[in-house]
Amino acid sequence: MKKILLIGIGAGNPDHVTMQAVEALNRADVIFVMEKGAAKERLTALRREICRRHLRRPDTRIVEASSPERDTAPADYRACVEDLNKAKQSVFERLIAEEVAEGQCGAFLLWGDPALYDSTLRNVEAIAATGRQTLEIEIIPGIMAPQVLAARHRIPLNRIAQSVHITTGRKLREGWPEEADSVVVMLDGEDSFGGYAETGEDIDIFWGAYLGMEEEILIAGKLADVADEISRVRARARAANGWIMDTYLMRRN
Amino acid sequence: MKKILLIGIGAGNPDHVTMQAVEALNRADVIFVMEKGAAKERLTALRREICRRHLRRPDTRIVEASSPERDTAPADYRACVEDLNKAKQSVFERLIAEEVAEGQCGAFLLWGDPALYDSTLRNVEAIAATGRQTLEIEIIPGIMAPQVLAARHRIPLNRIAQSVHITTGRKLREGWPEEADSVVVMLDGEDSFGGYAETGEDIDIFWGAYLGMEEEILIAGKLADVADEISRVRARARAANGWIMDTYLMRRN
Repeated sequence: MKKILLIGIGAGNPDHVTMQAVEALNRADVIFVMEKGAAKERLTALRREICRRHLRRPDTRIVEASSPERDTAPADYRACVEDLNKAKQSVFERLIAEEVAEGQCGAFLLWGDPALYDSTLRNVEAIAATGRQTLEIEIIPGIMAPQVLAARHRIPLNRIAQSVHITTGRKLREGWPEEADSVVVMLDGEDSFGGYAETGEDIDIFWGAYLGMEEEILIAGKLADVADEISRVRARARAANGWIMDTYLMRRN
Repeated sequence: MKKILLIGIGAGNPDHVTMQAVEALNRADVIFVMEKGAAKERLTALRREICRRHLRRPDTRIVEASSPERDTAPADYRACVEDLNKAKQSVFERLIAEEVAEGQCGAFLLWGDPALYDSTLRNVEAIAATGRQTLEIEIIPGIMAPQVLAARHRIPLNRIAQSVHITTGRKLREGWPEEADSVVVMLDGEDSFGGYAETGEDIDIFWGAYLGMEEEILIAGKLADVADEISRVRARARAANGWIMDTYLMRRN
């Protein structure tokens, strides 16, 4: 039996880690830091900083590895995600086989919350399902970007007694979720809010990039007034930093 | 100027507090512990425990006070909530006026996340808007119940590339949110899942009560198979403990 911890470490600020995450970090014999893409260097440095601050065991090994990446504009999105997950499973399976001994504990440090738009749980479960290694999985929740977005804009996520709908840029482009009151959009690489800026509708937007980090940028206002500004600022920041992570909340009035 | 911190302290487990919350706790001159209802004693004890573990300043004052309560089955829900918020504002305004001196910092410890189904931000902003006291508000995100629900059931909140809809029992009784894929229900005192148990639809439910606490109960399965069990277990636990806090995730297949 091997124990696998999926530890949510928050949304960019090293101080987002919980006491539970710190305790879990110190249970691990091996900590896996998986990274990819242009943000790799910055995000790997942040995780190293979390380990530096909170790891009390001198014998814990930190293993940094590259996570497979997907085509950013695939013809078939689902097929592409499935191929990517198979590639990740093969990397993760090898890492667990080689780096975690029987009876030991391995931990993956995950941005945000392991339960929201993160494939690690599905991939580790797929590895366990092969039966080639016996894995016991434990999940530690972490602060996720929509919570930091709301905190930094000093707004509630929900209007009184109303719902909050968390969705992706891809789905938002298919249409506004009619039954949703507050709409939080994640994983949007294409300024999908822009499609609603010229409909004449009264929509508020609260946007944030690099939330919780030193580079943090916040813009809020009527969507029709600030959509162009967000697109401009976003493109400029992405070019300057080489990467961007952003999220936003929209509400129809 | 008075600084008011709204600190999310997580969903029941004292170890859900973040490093950021601990730092904020130690910036406060006064910590307000507001509680109400049957869970009062248990939840106040949990907050005292958080202060005991993490408060390093010997001079911080902890002020416990009762929060006004609302009619649990009002004829007009919105009007009732508004009345309740006015009552809360009056209590909070007096506490801030009497307990927090100019230049000092007061903190409210809030279950879950200050941004999700919590009225404290709206109420403190209403107090600031009167102009009788100058308040600077800062929000510290906290782990919320749906995250703990997912972690404990070892499931993702979302299906691959799909949305997550967070709503209330009241709204679920009005109808299933058609555009939602995964539906998380909070603030449901009336087993509203039951209305979908006999529709013949293939729905999975993941239910949890007292999440993160010693009393935690988890039930998952096909809604048609486990709806009665959840209702029975819920009623029994509520009677035994005098209170219950629960949440659940449902998905149509």
